[in-house]
Amino acid sequence: MSGTDTVYDVLGIGNAMMDVLAKVGEGFLSERNLSKGRMTLLDAQSAGKIYADIDPEREVSGGSAANTVAGLASLGADCAFIGKVHDDAFGQAFRRDIGAAGIDFFTEPLLEGPATGRSIVLVTPDAERSMFTYLGAAEHLSVKDIDENIIKSSKIIYMEGYLWEHLESREAVLKACELAHKYKRKTAFTLSDKSCVERYRADLLKLVTEQIDVLFANESELNALFETTDLMDSLDKIKSMVEIAAITRDARGSVVVNGRVKIFVEAEKIENVVDSTGAGDLYAAGFLYGMIQDRSLGTCAMIGGIAASEIISHYGARPEVSLRGFVRNKLLKYGKKA
Amino acid sequence: MSGTDTVYDVLGIGNAMMDVLAKVGEGFLSERNLSKGRMTLLDAQSAGKIYADIDPEREVSGGSAANTVAGLASLGADCAFIGKVHDDAFGQAFRRDIGAAGIDFFTEPLLEGPATGRSIVLVTPDAERSMFTYLGAAEHLSVKDIDENIIKSSKIIYMEGYLWEHLESREAVLKACELAHKYKRKTAFTLSDKSCVERYRADLLKLVTEQIDVLFANESELNALFETTDLMDSLDKIKSMVEIAAITRDARGSVVVNGRVKIFVEAEKIENVVDSTGAGDLYAAGFLYGMIQDRSLGTCAMIGGIAASEIISHYGARPEVSLRGFVRNKLLKYGKKA
Repeated sequence: MSGTDTVYDVLGIGNAMMDVLAKVGEGFLSERNLSKGRMTLLDAQSAGKIYADIDPEREVSGGSAANTVAGLASLGADCAFIGKVHDDAFGQAFRRDIGAAGIDFFTEPLLEGPATGRSIVLVTPDAERSMFTYLGAAEHLSVKDIDENIIKSSKIIYMEGYLWEHLESREAVLKACELAHKYKRKTAFTLSDKSCVERYRADLLKLVTEQIDVLFANESELNALFETTDLMDSLDKIKSMVEIAAITRDARGSVVVNGRVKIFVEAEKIENVVDSTGAGDLYAAGFLYGMIQDRSLGTCAMIGGIAASEIISHYGARPEVSLRGFVRNKLLKYGKKA
Repeated sequence: MSGTDTVYDVLGIGNAMMDVLAKVGEGFLSERNLSKGRMTLLDAQSAGKIYADIDPEREVSGGSAANTVAGLASLGADCAFIGKVHDDAFGQAFRRDIGAAGIDFFTEPLLEGPATGRSIVLVTPDAERSMFTYLGAAEHLSVKDIDENIIKSSKIIYMEGYLWEHLESREAVLKACELAHKYKRKTAFTLSDKSCVERYRADLLKLVTEQIDVLFANESELNALFETTDLMDSLDKIKSMVEIAAITRDARGSVVVNGRVKIFVEAEKIENVVDSTGAGDLYAAGFLYGMIQDRSLGTCAMIGGIAASEIISHYGARPEVSLRGFVRNKLLKYGKKA
């Protein structure tokens, strides 16, 4: 992918969130009638109730697209991020972390109104994560925050499906797509969450078909988009809608669809999955890194899988090692150029 | 693939054959108890009997590996060929055609003994081809014909499974592999034919595992190698035996296996299949051309499919147009660099 007059490899646009991580027993969710393995949106009060019952292990910067650009930065890419925090302690922590990762983040914080968004991530003993999200300030991302110069300066604009949860941020997505096309930049989008897809199926189908070049999703999100349980059916449908679709399949690896080509890549073998939070975000990071390096789509998927394997080997969705070296090592093991 | 001290992109080693093409009705084969859709070896007398009963449409140069290097030359690659003809009219025609295609061919012809090999290709109305082969002079390819300097000068040494039918040519294959490894050249091999695989299964498994980097086969040949009817099972077995396996699947396209990556590529759509002779040979040509151009494996498979689509749109297994332009046009249509 040849950079012309661009400064950033990838601009991420998403909900700026702090992740509150807590381990809970299998019973915690069922006792409170909380759904497992997906993201549930909460108001401030309900979020406060869960928060009161847990023993937070860590409070770390999160947010799906923010995790992806953090992964990209760790791989060596130049990134920017657009997302809304409040100027509170969580907002300042988010800004500090994303700055420390070397990512440009210029979005004005809220000075009043809702607090910085947070996602309570409950990790059960099977390493499954269940997320309970209070969007807070993130809901107030709007078209005014979509800086035309940053879009113009970015090779790829990566946006998360979670932004579709609120009208203001939805319009921000459409504005970003419009500007990306104006400057002939690539748009990438993740479906983010199965229930999100179920809520906005028609909207998302239209968005993906008309606006998106590179789609990320997991198997169940993609199947939800087409109301099927047959992945092959979904793959045959998505192939004419986007240039590239990269679909993650947990322990079965991933599959990339590019027109008449379908590339199945086995998963990285890892000994102990500690916390699957961020696996999809980091897969996208690795995949996009491969793209900006002009690697083959199979290698993009491998790099995605390698980056994801790092993130699920520990708590939290931001890399704990330099992903650049981590990926290089693995690629060399597979006999690929690093 | 970076060429160091090489002259040729691909050296083909195979049976040097003339193809005698004839259209026959569906009944022709069953009346004579001849098997359909595969290659049957004949002695000179039996071949003569069939020859007497048909009305040959064309007599053209053929031979599996020879067709592949002819395809490669038409794509713009530098090629050489090693194979045995008699210095008779058929042998001279073979030499003239391969020379006209710009391929170096230095193998000494037989001056006495069996005539140049011929393959009677009977094409039924369903475009299926049934081959009846008299190997003749081709059987006498021997280790003495494997020129160390040509192996040393070639990036890829491509050999056909048909060579396993005779002891002398089998030893020539092993010698070529030995020299290829000595000079760190890539070895490529096609399984050629299902019945050939059934006859020499154990031998071919050993050869492929120990000597071959890039394997070509169609689905039924690969399944025969592993005595299964489950392609996924075969693909999982071949992945640890060779670096790359490229498996053709007729109208369902092809699949490439490279370690943990499996790439499924749909077939080229063509309106009218006239004669499937040479489809596998030309797929290999396109695929190897992609490899020497350092294209991604998905693109290699696409180029293979495009080259095959040209050959099955007319009688005979040598290209009738410049494949270079033909492939460029199609790749541009798919939005790929040409």
